[in-house]
Amino acid sequence: MIKTPYLLFLGDAPDGLAAKVAQGIKDWRSEFAIGQYRLPGCKADLGLPDLTLEDARAKGVETVVIGVANRGGIIGESWRAALLEAIAAGFDLASGLHTRLNAYPDLVRAAQTHGTALHDVRVPGIDYPIANGVKRSGKRCLAVGTDCSVGKMYTALAMEAEMRQRNLNASFRATGQTGILITGDGVPLDAVVADFMAGSIEHLTPDNDPDHWDLIEGQGSLFHVSYSGVTMALIHGGQPDALILCDEPTRPHMRGLPDYTAPSLETLRDTALGLARVANPACKVVGISINTQHLSEANALAHMAEVEARMGLPTVDPFRQGAARLVDALEGI
Amino acid sequence: MIKTPYLLFLGDAPDGLAAKVAQGIKDWRSEFAIGQYRLPGCKADLGLPDLTLEDARAKGVETVVIGVANRGGIIGESWRAALLEAIAAGFDLASGLHTRLNAYPDLVRAAQTHGTALHDVRVPGIDYPIANGVKRSGKRCLAVGTDCSVGKMYTALAMEAEMRQRNLNASFRATGQTGILITGDGVPLDAVVADFMAGSIEHLTPDNDPDHWDLIEGQGSLFHVSYSGVTMALIHGGQPDALILCDEPTRPHMRGLPDYTAPSLETLRDTALGLARVANPACKVVGISINTQHLSEANALAHMAEVEARMGLPTVDPFRQGAARLVDALEGI
Repeated sequence: MIKTPYLLFLGDAPDGLAAKVAQGIKDWRSEFAIGQYRLPGCKADLGLPDLTLEDARAKGVETVVIGVANRGGIIGESWRAALLEAIAAGFDLASGLHTRLNAYPDLVRAAQTHGTALHDVRVPGIDYPIANGVKRSGKRCLAVGTDCSVGKMYTALAMEAEMRQRNLNASFRATGQTGILITGDGVPLDAVVADFMAGSIEHLTPDNDPDHWDLIEGQGSLFHVSYSGVTMALIHGGQPDALILCDEPTRPHMRGLPDYTAPSLETLRDTALGLARVANPACKVVGISINTQHLSEANALAHMAEVEARMGLPTVDPFRQGAARLVDALEGI
Repeated sequence: MIKTPYLLFLGDAPDGLAAKVAQGIKDWRSEFAIGQYRLPGCKADLGLPDLTLEDARAKGVETVVIGVANRGGIIGESWRAALLEAIAAGFDLASGLHTRLNAYPDLVRAAQTHGTALHDVRVPGIDYPIANGVKRSGKRCLAVGTDCSVGKMYTALAMEAEMRQRNLNASFRATGQTGILITGDGVPLDAVVADFMAGSIEHLTPDNDPDHWDLIEGQGSLFHVSYSGVTMALIHGGQPDALILCDEPTRPHMRGLPDYTAPSLETLRDTALGLARVANPACKVVGISINTQHLSEANALAHMAEVEARMGLPTVDPFRQGAARLVDALEGI
């Protein structure tokens, strides 16, 4: 568990896109996003106050989060000096970069000296159990996609925000690096050893109040041959009561797999539901989330209307329209 | 890759069942099983010559394989002395026990001193790639089960033996500890990190001659919530041309999951085939393997006749009847 709130380290990000982890934290956990820390040449700007380490300390910041991705996922010299200063000032660090903070001896030594923590959120922090399949109390919703990177995390976060606004009892449950950095907790599922994948998701979504919803971040796709095993473990470990189908309708082929085309929403529905009912016979598909970023407003609305009529399920783009209708559907079951 | 042939170390096995890894090597790779090595009190006997280390060296043995499982999966004092002697005599060691050979500093030091290898087959030896889903040459057959431990490995090994007898071009591909020790090579799939599972199976079953069959050892079950992700990765990483359905018809519930019952063979067929066709649209279900060890001969034959009529697929117990009809079915596609 990463201590909050955060100072968002943007380094020398060449543009706003490079700072998308930091942007996600600001968008979804603005209460954690106390300020930003930029190096000379940084072209990203979250519109947060630029804080010195001293300012951040005074405002109660606990952790400096590396909110920027760079080519190669390594921590360059210019960053290291700033991060060493942050450690010396008593802050924890958190990173989702490929190269671990703990792989840099100077950072490790400094953290030991100053008694601070280095969180590498790509590395599982605990030994997860093997899944036992026992029915848990509370309710769970999982987003499943026709492909990878179609908006599953965004959908779950938008649903959580809507539910909190309605004073419903809901928790986004992160299963990837960005989600973990946003919320400060979660399971880096793609780095978990095969035998413990489903168990890690049981651990992430334990018994809860009868009216509580876990909104589990989806990963991969049952139809993406590189990562389908991870998706399968989410479906069985999460034992969802509700599934949301996610699609990005303009993809010419599956992400990274030129010879594979995405399944229809009908095929996704039938396949995912059949498998989900192994773990939870009451599971239902309750709605559809479409990522329409590559469609015009008119085409997006027409496409969603067509899908909604065809599938008989509320169909929205949470980015354009919010997740209210998906939450209505959850409340209905 | 473990060097062959082997001396099979049985330790102080309390009975034959404890030596089932060694028994598997003798049954399926008798050419690797040069002799056995037993400590005082050993109650297992494979019917192989009891060899001293000197005898084994003279007969060309390269590796001493720990062919016995013990409670807790640790290497006791009495074993350690014998294993240290084997290392000093220049042999490699191979083990599938939970506690790694490489976790014992005395064994590690001895191996360094004598220039021999310690193979822990539960630990992935290489960094596997992420699966790319590219169609490979050659053919692949995968056994999928209604549950775990229903005879998938046995089925694949029996098919390989039958195919070799017919001078067909076939390779058993091990995906678990026992299979790896039997053949000297393979992927310990349950220990592979999630993102690389399917890629490890692509690596295990590469491009091959057009008439070559990989007989891939199955793991878990799509219907076993603890391990279904592993099975999914086998189906997509293996891109099988042929599936064999495996069942053990007397189980009251899924192995280790008292609240879960096994699916019907029809459900297994439809679910596995639908998912397999994502990676290989030509995939077919070609036969059924039933583990009838808990049925009388008469009941076993009646059960298999009923399944064969119902499913319209050749149905055998390879242990009772051999795998000839399953291989006939493979040859037919």
